Amino acid sequence: VQIPTKPTGEPKVVYIFNSKTCDGGAELKDILGNKGALLAEMMKLGVPVPPGFTIPASMCETYESCRVEGTDAVEDIWEDVEFAISETEKELGKKFGGEGDAEPLLFSVRSGAAVSMPGMLETVLNIGLNKSVCEKIAAANGGANKRFAYDAYRRLLDMFGSVVFEMDRSQFEMELERVKEKKGVEKDTELSAEDLMEVCDAYEQVYLKVDPNRPFPSDPTMQLKLAIEAVFESWNKPRAKAYREIAGLSSLGGTAVNVQSMVFGNLGETSGTGVCFTRRPDTGEKIIFGEYLINAQGEDVVAGIRTPEPISTLFEKMPVVAQSLQDTLDKLEMHFKNMQDIEFTIDSGKLFILQTRNGKRNGVAAINVAVDMYEEGLITKAEAIEMVELDHLNQLIHPAFKETEEEYEDAKISTGLAASPGAAVGRVAFSSEDVLAMKKANPKEGVILCRVETSAEDVSGMHASNGFLTQNGGMTSHAAVVARGWGLPCVSGVATMRVDEAKKEAYFYSSESISPANLIATVKSGDWISLDGGEGFVINRKVEMNAAGEGVYEQHPKMAKFMSWVEEAKSLGVYANADTAAELKLAMYFGAQGIGLCRTEHMLLASAERVSISRSMILAKDDASRVEILDKKMGPMLKDDFQALFEQAGNLPVTIRLLDPPLHEFLPTELELKDEKFAADLAKKCSLESADALREMCEAKREKNPMMGLRGVRVGILEPKITIMQTKAIVNAIIDAYIATGVHPNGKIMVPLVSTTEEFENQRALIFQTIQEVFNARASEVSRADVLGPDNREIPIGMMCETPRACIVSGNLVEEGAAFMSFGSNDLSQLSFGFSRDDASSFLEKYKEFGIIETDPFNTIDVDGVGELIKMSVRGARAVNSKIPVSVCGEHGGDEKSIEFFHEAGLNVVSCSAFRVLGARLAAAKANI
Amino acid sequence: VQIPTKPTGEPKVVYIFNSKTCDGGAELKDILGNKGALLAEMMKLGVPVPPGFTIPASMCETYESCRVEGTDAVEDIWEDVEFAISETEKELGKKFGGEGDAEPLLFSVRSGAAVSMPGMLETVLNIGLNKSVCEKIAAANGGANKRFAYDAYRRLLDMFGSVVFEMDRSQFEMELERVKEKKGVEKDTELSAEDLMEVCDAYEQVYLKVDPNRPFPSDPTMQLKLAIEAVFESWNKPRAKAYREIAGLSSLGGTAVNVQSMVFGNLGETSGTGVCFTRRPDTGEKIIFGEYLINAQGEDVVAGIRTPEPISTLFEKMPVVAQSLQDTLDKLEMHFKNMQDIEFTIDSGKLFILQTRNGKRNGVAAINVAVDMYEEGLITKAEAIEMVELDHLNQLIHPAFKETEEEYEDAKISTGLAASPGAAVGRVAFSSEDVLAMKKANPKEGVILCRVETSAEDVSGMHASNGFLTQNGGMTSHAAVVARGWGLPCVSGVATMRVDEAKKEAYFYSSESISPANLIATVKSGDWISLDGGEGFVINRKVEMNAAGEGVYEQHPKMAKFMSWVEEAKSLGVYANADTAAELKLAMYFGAQGIGLCRTEHMLLASAERVSISRSMILAKDDASRVEILDKKMGPMLKDDFQALFEQAGNLPVTIRLLDPPLHEFLPTELELKDEKFAADLAKKCSLESADALREMCEAKREKNPMMGLRGVRVGILEPKITIMQTKAIVNAIIDAYIATGVHPNGKIMVPLVSTTEEFENQRALIFQTIQEVFNARASEVSRADVLGPDNREIPIGMMCETPRACIVSGNLVEEGAAFMSFGSNDLSQLSFGFSRDDASSFLEKYKEFGIIETDPFNTIDVDGVGELIKMSVRGARAVNSKIPVSVCGEHGGDEKSIEFFHEAGLNVVSCSAFRVLGARLAAAKANI
Ligand SMILES: [Mg+2]
Ligand SMILES: [Mg+2]
Repeated sequence: VQIPTKPTGEPKVVYIFNSKTCDGGAELKDILGNKGALLAEMMKLGVPVPPGFTIPASMCETYESCRVEGTDAVEDIWEDVEFAISETEKELGKKFGGEGDAEPLLFSVRSGAAVSMPGMLETVLNIGLNKSVCEKIAAANGGANKRFAYDAYRRLLDMFGSVVFEMDRSQFEMELERVKEKKGVEKDTELSAEDLMEVCDAYEQVYLKVDPNRPFPSDPTMQLKLAIEAVFESWNKPRAKAYREIAGLSSLGGTAVNVQSMVFGNLGETSGTGVCFTRRPDTGEKIIFGEYLINAQGEDVVAGIRTPEPISTLFEKMPVVAQSLQDTLDKLEMHFKNMQDIEFTIDSGKLFILQTRNGKRNGVAAINVAVDMYEEGLITKAEAIEMVELDHLNQLIHPAFKETEEEYEDAKISTGLAASPGAAVGRVAFSSEDVLAMKKANPKEGVILCRVETSAEDVSGMHASNGFLTQNGGMTSHAAVVARGWGLPCVSGVATMRVDEAKKEAYFYSSESISPANLIATVKSGDWISLDGGEGFVINRKVEMNAAGEGVYEQHPKMAKFMSWVEEAKSLGVYANADTAAELKLAMYFGAQGIGLCRTEHMLLASAERVSISRSMILAKDDASRVEILDKKMGPMLKDDFQALFEQAGNLPVTIRLLDPPLHEFLPTELELKDEKFAADLAKKCSLESADALREMCEAKREKNPMMGLRGVRVGILEPKITIMQTKAIVNAIIDAYIATGVHPNGKIMVPLVSTTEEFENQRALIFQTIQEVFNARASEVSRADVLGPDNREIPIGMMCETPRACIVSGNLVEEGAAFMSFGSNDLSQLSFGFSRDDASSFLEKYKEFGIIETDPFNTIDVDGVGELIKMSVRGARAVNSKIPVSVCGEHGGDEKSIEFFHEAGLNVVSCSAFRVLGARLAAAKANI
Repeated sequence: VQIPTKPTGEPKVVYIFNSKTCDGGAELKDILGNKGALLAEMMKLGVPVPPGFTIPASMCETYESCRVEGTDAVEDIWEDVEFAISETEKELGKKFGGEGDAEPLLFSVRSGAAVSMPGMLETVLNIGLNKSVCEKIAAANGGANKRFAYDAYRRLLDMFGSVVFEMDRSQFEMELERVKEKKGVEKDTELSAEDLMEVCDAYEQVYLKVDPNRPFPSDPTMQLKLAIEAVFESWNKPRAKAYREIAGLSSLGGTAVNVQSMVFGNLGETSGTGVCFTRRPDTGEKIIFGEYLINAQGEDVVAGIRTPEPISTLFEKMPVVAQSLQDTLDKLEMHFKNMQDIEFTIDSGKLFILQTRNGKRNGVAAINVAVDMYEEGLITKAEAIEMVELDHLNQLIHPAFKETEEEYEDAKISTGLAASPGAAVGRVAFSSEDVLAMKKANPKEGVILCRVETSAEDVSGMHASNGFLTQNGGMTSHAAVVARGWGLPCVSGVATMRVDEAKKEAYFYSSESISPANLIATVKSGDWISLDGGEGFVINRKVEMNAAGEGVYEQHPKMAKFMSWVEEAKSLGVYANADTAAELKLAMYFGAQGIGLCRTEHMLLASAERVSISRSMILAKDDASRVEILDKKMGPMLKDDFQALFEQAGNLPVTIRLLDPPLHEFLPTELELKDEKFAADLAKKCSLESADALREMCEAKREKNPMMGLRGVRVGILEPKITIMQTKAIVNAIIDAYIATGVHPNGKIMVPLVSTTEEFENQRALIFQTIQEVFNARASEVSRADVLGPDNREIPIGMMCETPRACIVSGNLVEEGAAFMSFGSNDLSQLSFGFSRDDASSFLEKYKEFGIIETDPFNTIDVDGVGELIKMSVRGARAVNSKIPVSVCGEHGGDEKSIEFFHEAGLNVVSCSAFRVLGARLAAAKANI
């Protein structure tokens, strides 16, 4: 990018944009800010834009250092500003200040950083007005514009006072109300020109009342200078600084100032104002879509006092203007290669474009616009891919409300964390059993599980329900993770709700201060509620829903084509985290190229019966009975599950992780143990003497920090029979799937939570030996080479890299024979930060508020810390085996920014839940473009 | 090291040692093993050693590969062996096999790796005997040696059968018993020569009974060959391999074989055998110390059938031999520059040395020997330092039993983990309150606290007790860590004990299988027990104790000199972890150069009253009452504690860590909360409505994984007032200590558990500002420059580097202004491995058993993983500030191997508990030598 210079060779300090001179352009966004750069760009394109000029962002720094030194930075550049003013005057044949015969020229002053930024001075309109200029405007045109002139002046006084002099706006409002009352009118528009003159007088007095030494500056040049300075001042105001710090924008150098000639849509029936899209933002249809008002200003459209008309009628009412609009839109879309969202004003029959930007659109439109534009020859496939966001795809696959937020606003009783997107409507159930009972009674009615928080034992009820609502837990709580995994909506961490699971009631309060006075709703078992998991809303009634779910390619015919481009563009493999054939089927439908993570423990928790088997295994009175349960019950059960997965997968890779969670997670809860009958029954099943013996056993197995306790590879080392049972089940499933289908299954075995080479070597040897034993035992049925394919490869044994130590010694682990490795980014993030996922919500929310962290490290990978560890680990592993497949299978595998990082870090595969596969593929493509 | 070669240029395969030829020497330990190398070395020195030869360890590998190929490795070198035999024959004028007129030559065959190794063939004596050789010996000397000959033959038959042919030894024993019974004698010595001949015949029959085709080989050459092969075979036996793997000796190439001519101490009144030290191993006194038996073999000394005589009497009985022994000992000590422990045999009036090695000694002797030898000019200071072990110093400062293990053996009821060294004797108490009550009743009697496990609230009782005994918990459990910190003995993780805290009884079982049948002892409140924390013993009575404790320099006059050498030799600073002035005083007495870690939380837990204040702060109903407690109660209390520390420290650095543990650790336990009165009282103190409200509040604050929850820097960020209170207390303490003493205190403030730069920056800014505020507030009393010294330095604000992420971004943290950093190696190890210290004992013990880990990573730093992270972190920090002080203050700061690593990693300081300071200084010196 070349920076324009003055004839002296110095960089320009004022960038003019008009039909003859255009110093700026889109490529200068960093210097001129987004707004200034695009105004210049449009001007260069020949789009009708009111002329003006931009003072670049670099002046902001100069201003600050001069202020400290006590010199006047704006004065120093004033010669250049005056030149720019005169150029604008020449272009328009008007005069700023209204001297002589020429029409008075008015300016707007707007800030404009490279990124839009709340907390900064936004806009001052109508600069250049004072009483004498008003009179001049009033005098012209036979007095028709007198009311217009004083209305404009009143607005200037108000805006200038409040934003430049930081006066309290209510003082102006009080004066306006006083005059309106006096005149007995209700609306501003009912005030006459004379009334408005009175208002202006009163406003001028307000200035003097606040500070007798600081009247409103009637000199237009002074108005302009003060407004420009106020923009620069606002950049260094605490709230703007704080915002930049929080938003991670600390490196931004400053804001530009845009000074632009005013145009007016309220100059009569040949004037007007409107907004429109170049295509329909809800469907993507290629048709101008928007609305406008005759004889109105932008504010009027927003205020909603008059009802705007659809843009189509403009072609009847002002055909020339309408055609000009159409031509301009075509030009803008062609130029910016994206659907545009513009604001326009018609000033006495002449069209002006005040702003253009890429238009927001929904998922359907995003896909359609992207595919259409490519087919129109407007954009490349890569550009089409860049145009679609992950959220767009999510919209297409998650159910949604038919009603708008406004329609159900009155019934909204709380907002929690938007833990898993999508909408759900159903009757409330307060326990897993209740969910199942309600579903049995009315299979077609939705049920929403509402808990203080969920845990592994709720899983069967969770599976049957349509969405989860929890009082506690963050974005990565059990409920949130399970919900995202299954594509179910979830609202978690609802701080204004209290759940009484015993009473089966939930209480909603108007604030986080929980007291009877604040109670706004009580929801009982069986009541209807609705959840918006994408916004975190809880609504106290049944909201109407759109149909949704599968069939995304059929419902959206351009989707398949779009995703095929995505597939071509990406290099990263996208696998799914899936534990059942049904999940895998869905994931494959969404384009998953295999299973990156199958969690054996989910199989063991899939039903009450299975939970009971797991418990009796763990609590078995001796090794013999434990082996009996492993061999006779668990093994065959898992074998069938695995076989179903392999049959569904065909020859796609299926990576099975050995049992990972602490065994005691399978044990009964304290509440269950208090139930005398339950405890006695379970004790009997486990051949334990008494309920008390059971309780003691459970107590002995509890851990202080289970996340770092007896879990993962440690279980397999202490109880080799569990590893053996799982390996047998996997290999037998591979053999049986081959026999059933004739396809060679592609199973991989993954050892979790490894931190030392010896741990991995211990399990690798055990698994390797067990694999041989199973093949030997079944050699008479089928040969190993038959099952595994003509090259008779080994079944790969790999490891999860999810402790910091494993990352550091990854090279040694690969030397020890790890055939592949997969980062468990959840555990790795927990251990790297020392943040327990279950407990961190108590401080992570505050951390965000205080600007300590930008994004939750459990959602988006922490590139500087955890990311560095991952890169180090990949380097270490590849130094030993340059071809070792490396993947990630934590929650981050479905997150866009994280996927970008994984791509750059040289991973081969990301694995995520089925419902995130489409998005992950898109992110992988974007990362590779 | 040069390897001797044969004339052909090939390396020697048999190393001869005799008075003329000595192929080996001490420098060839890796080739000849320890034993072989030292036999050669002694021979070279002119020490009387029975001549022989050594087959080097490299043959072991050759033997194994030949075995696989089916060739005969020993046969291949037999020419060399025969040459060595003939050289030995020449030297002694004897003949192996007894041909001709010469006296028969007998050999011993012993294995000898570079490290001694259980599970391998040890020794076969008397090789070269058969019936005809026996007859020859019997015939010589007028038949006096007939009994001797057959006794030797019987022993050969027994040893050869059991170790070379791996026959069941009991078969020989049965035959011996049969003959003894027949002859009506009880002792072996009562058997006549003829009886022994009968035994020998019976033994030969045993060979044929086991395998008719494998009789005892009467050919001496065959005996020798088979014995040599058996040594090599034993190297590759599973038990030897397993041992090497577990002991981390996998890189050892093989064992050497030592073939040495036999000498006999049982050839009459001019023969004998004995052991002795060159100096007293209990005091270090320079005097020969040992015992001997006339007409006896080594076995007889060990068997204890006859009482040996003190070595001093040898000077009367055999003055010539005694003088020869004295000369030899002087020579050996001079040569090996260390106190020696030797075995000798007098064979018919001639002295032979069979073994020499550095003598084991106790702490007192170690110091005295080291200092004496330096002063005798025998060794350098560095060698003196190397000669003393950390355990030696520990012995000097920990109390010990007067009774030997044998004396109290009968009362030993269990062995747990040796969690903290030292001996304790006292009455058993089962609660903190009981300890205090017993101490009050009988202040001079010891009390031992016995718990299922201890926690923060036991601290006051723990402090008053003389030792801890816990059923659960590993080497780094609360009890263990506190015990080591205070230098109190502790036995933890006693798997054969069950504590019933309610009943106030502990039950001891004979095995880990807990059942009434196995109950061996019940200990009740008030019963006397004794603990040996260095061995893990629990003894069911009062064992007699030595006095111990402070006064180490006075009790051991050479200690101060020795430690001054240590101080000169080390470059690493050694600080103490200390929380009270008394602890610091002791640490300074032991040579600590400052406090590396003062744990504020220990101050808050130091008494029941303080715990109560902490609880009311945490549970305060609103911010105002919390601030009230912080400012009015906690702040002043901490200020006084800190001031006492600063006054004790003078100008030594005092590093104060801000509150680190999860706040809920201060909360009442579930048991306490169940107590209605307790709960109601506490609720009232905290202005809470009811006991239930208190319970709910406590419940809400509990965490699933508190180790990774709301603790460390996170507390200070969420509750800045706690950081402010602590900072104020520290700065006011600094000011008041200066006013009181006129010395400039050297305080440092350390922020715990940082993982992001933003966290540190947040707290650093808050602390920095608070420091200014306190100095400003007290400016009228005293100036900042007065307090902090003429250079008016800043109070350094540093951070603990104890999450993996902090290690990775250490450079950024230093950029963010960290003035120093200290590794919290406990937390860092927990997070790097993902091992919870509290829960890991359930698998770490098994890990050791299975060879997954060699040493507990919470005792000795894991160099490959955690160490790598530390090194990376030091590099990162020093790249930004090459002078930044870096220390470690976790448990590892007192561990020898860890200190060696920290020295190499370039740390400046290690900090450990007062009782480990002496040892840490020694380790630091060793690391620098
Ligand atoms: Mg994991
Ligand atoms: Mg720590």
